[in-house]
Amino acid sequence: MCAATARESLEELKVHLAAIADVESAAAVLDWDQHTYMPPGGAEPRALQLATLSRIAHEQFTSARTRTLLDAAELLLDSLEPDSNDAALLRVTRRDLTKASKLPSEFVAELQRTASLATHVWQEARAQNDFPVFRPHLERIFELMRRRADYLGYREHPYDALMDDYEPGMTSREVKALFDRLLEVTVPLVRAIASRPGPAVGALARDYEDGPQRVFGLAMAEAFGYDATRGRLDTSAHPFSTGFSRDDVRITTRFQRPGLGAVFAIFHEAGHAMYDQGIAAAIQRTLLAGGASYGIHESQSRLWENLVGRSRAFWEYAYPALGRAFPAQLTGVDAEIFYGSINRVEPSLIRIHADEVTYNLHIILRFELEQAVLTGALRVAELPGAWNDRMMSYLGVTPKTDTDGVLQDTHWAAGLVGYFPSYTLGNVVSVQLFEAARKDNPALEEQIRRGQFGTLLRWLREHVHEHGRKYFPGDLVVRATGGPLTPEPYLSYLRGKFGGIYGIPAA
Amino acid sequence: MCAATARESLEELKVHLAAIADVESAAAVLDWDQHTYMPPGGAEPRALQLATLSRIAHEQFTSARTRTLLDAAELLLDSLEPDSNDAALLRVTRRDLTKASKLPSEFVAELQRTASLATHVWQEARAQNDFPVFRPHLERIFELMRRRADYLGYREHPYDALMDDYEPGMTSREVKALFDRLLEVTVPLVRAIASRPGPAVGALARDYEDGPQRVFGLAMAEAFGYDATRGRLDTSAHPFSTGFSRDDVRITTRFQRPGLGAVFAIFHEAGHAMYDQGIAAAIQRTLLAGGASYGIHESQSRLWENLVGRSRAFWEYAYPALGRAFPAQLTGVDAEIFYGSINRVEPSLIRIHADEVTYNLHIILRFELEQAVLTGALRVAELPGAWNDRMMSYLGVTPKTDTDGVLQDTHWAAGLVGYFPSYTLGNVVSVQLFEAARKDNPALEEQIRRGQFGTLLRWLREHVHEHGRKYFPGDLVVRATGGPLTPEPYLSYLRGKFGGIYGIPAA
Repeated sequence: MCAATARESLEELKVHLAAIADVESAAAVLDWDQHTYMPPGGAEPRALQLATLSRIAHEQFTSARTRTLLDAAELLLDSLEPDSNDAALLRVTRRDLTKASKLPSEFVAELQRTASLATHVWQEARAQNDFPVFRPHLERIFELMRRRADYLGYREHPYDALMDDYEPGMTSREVKALFDRLLEVTVPLVRAIASRPGPAVGALARDYEDGPQRVFGLAMAEAFGYDATRGRLDTSAHPFSTGFSRDDVRITTRFQRPGLGAVFAIFHEAGHAMYDQGIAAAIQRTLLAGGASYGIHESQSRLWENLVGRSRAFWEYAYPALGRAFPAQLTGVDAEIFYGSINRVEPSLIRIHADEVTYNLHIILRFELEQAVLTGALRVAELPGAWNDRMMSYLGVTPKTDTDGVLQDTHWAAGLVGYFPSYTLGNVVSVQLFEAARKDNPALEEQIRRGQFGTLLRWLREHVHEHGRKYFPGDLVVRATGGPLTPEPYLSYLRGKFGGIYGIPAA
Repeated sequence: MCAATARESLEELKVHLAAIADVESAAAVLDWDQHTYMPPGGAEPRALQLATLSRIAHEQFTSARTRTLLDAAELLLDSLEPDSNDAALLRVTRRDLTKASKLPSEFVAELQRTASLATHVWQEARAQNDFPVFRPHLERIFELMRRRADYLGYREHPYDALMDDYEPGMTSREVKALFDRLLEVTVPLVRAIASRPGPAVGALARDYEDGPQRVFGLAMAEAFGYDATRGRLDTSAHPFSTGFSRDDVRITTRFQRPGLGAVFAIFHEAGHAMYDQGIAAAIQRTLLAGGASYGIHESQSRLWENLVGRSRAFWEYAYPALGRAFPAQLTGVDAEIFYGSINRVEPSLIRIHADEVTYNLHIILRFELEQAVLTGALRVAELPGAWNDRMMSYLGVTPKTDTDGVLQDTHWAAGLVGYFPSYTLGNVVSVQLFEAARKDNPALEEQIRRGQFGTLLRWLREHVHEHGRKYFPGDLVVRATGGPLTPEPYLSYLRGKFGGIYGIPAA
């Protein structure tokens, strides 16, 4: 086949994939709607609509047409710059297609049905603290997860096959090594912290009205660089960010009082959203328009939520505005007291409420349990006990109910096994990226202190956002930071920041 | 082919069509979103997403699969009750398929592009009062409309082919006869009204806050029977109603002050929405799930907006609540003065602000001009002059600018030629239905006076809503009212109501 025909095939492939991207964007709109504005009656027909869109996207992607066009277009590969968008698109398309073709569509449908039912039962089980009613559904989910791993294939561990959905190219061996090192430092750090009084949290026990939280949170997100003309902020039961193109990336928050949870949720989701808003226009409506991995995506939310949003420098800038928004609540609270209150470390039962130090212990626990159940080393029936034991050894607390323990997350019911590590990878990478940005721009902290976030955002745009899925996450980290993924900068950050707050002498 | 196979084909056809209905519902969600919450940046990608969904729905509907299944399923027709849902589904599917297959997909795409560009230019032209810049686009639209009529075919008049999209089975000859009769009575009525002082409208010149208008309007819509747990009320530039299933039918309104426009827009849109909420569950996700015609749909909105919502009986019930919502604005205004103010007749330039009496004259003018341009009797360049002449002869007023004249509506730019008659058909049918409901239930007006709308809604459910597209609009009117479409009840209603308000002696 001549190069001209291969080029034509590539262009046709792009048109074909763009239409599939449109269907997926439409599904994302329907999903956003169902979490924000959809009336109760809409739930049942909406599930059917989403299933249809997902089936159409899957059918069109795994169709003979994709194969034919991709086969023909790949003849161009030798003549393309390896780092060009076209070469990356061909690589990613081949990878996605190979993977999608390994899963029989009946299996995909069965998993969808099982997860939908399991999610329903899980909601009840969590509300009633009734693990036994959920157990058979969870057993079924893990069976399907094992089958999924078998369909997809793996070298060492079935977990690798599952995790590949979230962290392409990463192995559970690498994750385990990383997590072991985190445990080694974090568990003693948590103990040291627990033996000290630490900052007062009274300021956060006060009642902050929804309206000013929303206005302040969004104003700060816009200061960070979230473009609200290409997005919007709504309310939902669980905060999320979702994009229908780089020019329409929406965030949500939830208002839980007392405290300023809605503000930090906005920072977090704005971090995700700025990533999607920063993806290069040239790769819109292609398979490259997305995050490099869930962990890289989480690195962006955590960077803005924690490395910026819980930093002393940021609050030197932002605290006066917060004080104007909440004059009554913050009377007698100075910036330093406030900074302490939002960084208090406290071993607790619920992952999503955990502080920066203890958060990863929740993740490591889940990772270990998922692996054990997947290999059969642990039975689903034994999960509640194993959960509680590990909580005690890592965090020194034990849930009184399964609702506060093994039933707390929606992930397993939804069939998302292998997903949790991405949260911690995000934490780890966020510090690597922040340090690299600071190395390129030593005035970074001073800029944050003045409320100037443009240099940081531009650095992230250039080194992370605009590339979308062009690079494997591991390669992206190397390109952006000059070295491979490593927990050391993150651990130094934790020891430095929380050692300071808690007055723990450097080891 | 044996009956069993035909039955299987019918069931497969339903599954196939249900998926297409899902895609169309998804498109409706995206459309709702773009008129309510979408940020400005989202416009361009949204247009692409909507084009893709519309292409997929069209491709799947006109696919060989639809044909094969329909051909096989039609063998059942002889054995089915003619009035059964299955028989109706087969008839409607065949009709839609035949029609859809007549339009080449390149033509459909060309019309879409032309209309999209024309709409863009029209917005500018209207803002700038610049008909000449819009003229070539409108010429192109009318050329495409003539081609569309040729593709679809017609017996007497190309207009019939276009109108069939909105009023299946109706001819422009029938419409013309109806409109001539309306003109005969309405023009003298408007003159008689103009010669009398009529009710004071001072009450409506006051400023009614958005919030209480919304609360009052929605409370009344719910009293009518609009189920807000299967819908919701939002704000948009132009009020509309849209459904994604019978269990998620949403309405919008707009707040324009002074006056109570938002309240009446809610009544109107709730009328549309109750129709869609009332379609039988058994025909959901089939081609039968929709209005019998645009005119029948409009009959429902006009019935609730005007025959209920601007009636003396309704305000005897509702006025105290309105007074509590707006105590300052309504001081010194009693129910009778208020009733007069919302029923004032005033020849005016803008269709969407027209009262019940003059409204149809705006429609008749458009119908006549559309017909004339379509046949070549009038050139597009001559439209502004012809518009102004007719305004003077029908309404006694002439626009000073094309913005207030020929440029006021979006329909032509959008390629919606043949649509306008449905508005007036809706007015005419609304009275026929209301009279038939009153005949079955003589206490109707007394119930409305007590705020009881259940009997009326049930009558409409049974005679109109639940059937969806099962019957041709003309047949539906006969079934529901016992006779064919006729303007006489509507004309009697106008003469009675406005003759009373204006003190015009019966002829």
